Amino acid sequence: MPATSARITALDTHDIRFPTSRELDGSDAMNPDPDYSAAYAVLRTDAPDGLEGHGFTFTIGRGNDVQVAAIAALREHVVGRSVDELCADPGSLSRDLIGDSQLRWLGPEKGVMHMAVGAVLNAVWDLAAKRAGLPLWRLLAEAEPAWLVSQVDFRYLTDALTPDEALELLRAARAGREERAARLLADGYPAYTTQPGWLGYSDEKLTRLAKQAVADGFTQIKLKVGADLADDVRRCRTARAVIGPDVRMAIDANQRWDVAEAIEWTNALAEFDPYWIEEPTSPDDILGHAAIRAGVRPIRTATGEHVQNRVVFKQLLQAGAIDILQLDATRVGGVNENLAILLLAAKFGIPVCPHAGGVGLCELVQHLSMFDFVALSGTTEDRVVEFADHLHGHFVDPAVIVNGRYRAPCAPGFSAQLHRDAVDTYSFPGGTFWSRELDS
Amino acid sequence: MPATSARITALDTHDIRFPTSRELDGSDAMNPDPDYSAAYAVLRTDAPDGLEGHGFTFTIGRGNDVQVAAIAALREHVVGRSVDELCADPGSLSRDLIGDSQLRWLGPEKGVMHMAVGAVLNAVWDLAAKRAGLPLWRLLAEAEPAWLVSQVDFRYLTDALTPDEALELLRAARAGREERAARLLADGYPAYTTQPGWLGYSDEKLTRLAKQAVADGFTQIKLKVGADLADDVRRCRTARAVIGPDVRMAIDANQRWDVAEAIEWTNALAEFDPYWIEEPTSPDDILGHAAIRAGVRPIRTATGEHVQNRVVFKQLLQAGAIDILQLDATRVGGVNENLAILLLAAKFGIPVCPHAGGVGLCELVQHLSMFDFVALSGTTEDRVVEFADHLHGHFVDPAVIVNGRYRAPCAPGFSAQLHRDAVDTYSFPGGTFWSRELDS
Repeated sequence: MPATSARITALDTHDIRFPTSRELDGSDAMNPDPDYSAAYAVLRTDAPDGLEGHGFTFTIGRGNDVQVAAIAALREHVVGRSVDELCADPGSLSRDLIGDSQLRWLGPEKGVMHMAVGAVLNAVWDLAAKRAGLPLWRLLAEAEPAWLVSQVDFRYLTDALTPDEALELLRAARAGREERAARLLADGYPAYTTQPGWLGYSDEKLTRLAKQAVADGFTQIKLKVGADLADDVRRCRTARAVIGPDVRMAIDANQRWDVAEAIEWTNALAEFDPYWIEEPTSPDDILGHAAIRAGVRPIRTATGEHVQNRVVFKQLLQAGAIDILQLDATRVGGVNENLAILLLAAKFGIPVCPHAGGVGLCELVQHLSMFDFVALSGTTEDRVVEFADHLHGHFVDPAVIVNGRYRAPCAPGFSAQLHRDAVDTYSFPGGTFWSRELDS
Repeated sequence: MPATSARITALDTHDIRFPTSRELDGSDAMNPDPDYSAAYAVLRTDAPDGLEGHGFTFTIGRGNDVQVAAIAALREHVVGRSVDELCADPGSLSRDLIGDSQLRWLGPEKGVMHMAVGAVLNAVWDLAAKRAGLPLWRLLAEAEPAWLVSQVDFRYLTDALTPDEALELLRAARAGREERAARLLADGYPAYTTQPGWLGYSDEKLTRLAKQAVADGFTQIKLKVGADLADDVRRCRTARAVIGPDVRMAIDANQRWDVAEAIEWTNALAEFDPYWIEEPTSPDDILGHAAIRAGVRPIRTATGEHVQNRVVFKQLLQAGAIDILQLDATRVGGVNENLAILLLAAKFGIPVCPHAGGVGLCELVQHLSMFDFVALSGTTEDRVVEFADHLHGHFVDPAVIVNGRYRAPCAPGFSAQLHRDAVDTYSFPGGTFWSRELDS
């Protein structure tokens, strides 16, 4: 692409809320009534190509306005920057955003402010991939290892992973990249479904959706647990009877328990052969997860969707606290920090099974796992990306599942763009849906 | 006090910013130019006493508006509540705020949203103490142990501290409470000063202020380090020469280092006999602090001002990662969570030396340490509260230091209230100071 003088001219923000609480979609032991929402960011430029960068933070309703305010607080770092330079080195912006000493006080590198950094960086990666004419997974998979390493902030990581080690991991995965990319394009990437298992669903609905999941080709489902043990026993028994012994069944407590209770409750469900127990306790409790993992073996311990940054993931790996690492596309500092997390997982040999669902998480996270397969871990063994069939139709380039596997996206970008109509309808409180609701 | 039907009628918010960056007050290795700020919350009621509850989050400038937005997002939980019920049981509001499942997604219990919870809860405690006619330390110190335990959220703590153990710790401290309260009122609580040691100060200013600190009766000072080793060696040598061998000298790296660098750099300053190394690395890095502590003994390891919640403090104690616990009054979920943290420290026998300075942190945190002395740990041995002589004049009931010790506050409340004039002058961007600045 020829060099241009194009600049970022705007960082627009939108508070988008979908009224999902009405159907109990997404209900679990800690989140009884989520309204799946996105604090949505759009980067505009003065380049003649008219391309935009789209990114967002997923939230579940109230507070989405606070998240939008945090994204807007980053505007001065972005507007006016050279589009060429930004897309050639998103890490330069990552360093500026994370290094803003005044904003850093609000984290550091955690919570609302850090997720805002992630939304803006993901929008930059979307723009960079669109300008390169490649889906993001492919842009990353074809990139030079040294450049990928330059995109990672190694601060606080070097006792577990050095830049040289990261470079070596990426270089070692170069052999076979093209063959794996071809396999990915032909076969897709394995998924599992949470669709049957929301806590608010009746046993009848659980049975019907579990049957459907197996018929649809999924080899793993997930059930929400943790509100009532007798209910969990009944629901696990029901699901296991429907799916048979060979389909994997994960369970997910959404941080409901203290350490001792997590061990006791999980073991009480062992007869149903759960594949992993997800979020048994606080995502901040590294030592707690290590104790739980030791107490529930051979059931695997999984966490990550609420893990705030690479420093906590580093320790979960150092402490031997998890069997499965569940990164999230919008919880941490964007693609840059997720590269760090993928590299850490590769170093420690722990499979990454990303969190998805919500608004657009499937769309984003598939790119990260596909990059990992083609150019880092080199395998899909024991790796699955979560899938929940919510709200995909609102995206311009929605995630597509065929026979229980994500089809590799081909459109340029990070699949993060909402249809104009979705923005107009579900903007809160002024969109056409909400203004009608709030009036009535 | 007779029962009333009074309700909370408003939660007002203010974005207050003081232009401290102009003097390099508060400069350190990570924060070169802070504008000390407060996202300030005022609870108003319809009670005839006209009392208000004041609370705030301390920030260092940009992003204070985001913090204000987060406090405002809690308004619906507070306005309309019975003042009697709220003040009799602030824990009920704590559970509602932390338990709001949609807002919880933005943390959970960390960063901007959690600090907002802390600001609102601290305002409730201020109101409760004013209505009781007691300074907060005294309200807490005179409270029944069972009631104090009821104010603590033990979720995620029970593998380290149970409610029964907490009750036992508080009951064991009942003997001698009155004698200790009398001693506190007579002698105050020990302080140390960071005044000489800001990184932006010249050696001449360091020398002058270190001399002054000793003359003022302080037995401990603190120096910021971590930007340049040669500078640190020179500044530590200068300070040690001025204060002599018997005054303690702490050093503070403000999260500047990775683990190996922290060990190396701290040991390179060992000849100057630093009492503790503070924030050597990421506040999220529990295992990193444990490694650093093992690598720098006998220099003590201290952290806490950026530790996000009780779950991380629990692990720092479980892992034997710290010698000194530095809680902060506005980083966590208010007095309720700081009670949990004080109880954890007491259980593990680790001294608490709170972080202060900034805007109003000295005013708040003195109450917590004084309660701890009178009714929990029962001692001030190896305990000091930080002091920095910034911005106290803007508070209605400012912290007072006499001969290197905090005088016990006597005015009812939590000492959190700013003068009306400070709010009018330093509100951003509309206050008289900022509107003049931003115009010129």
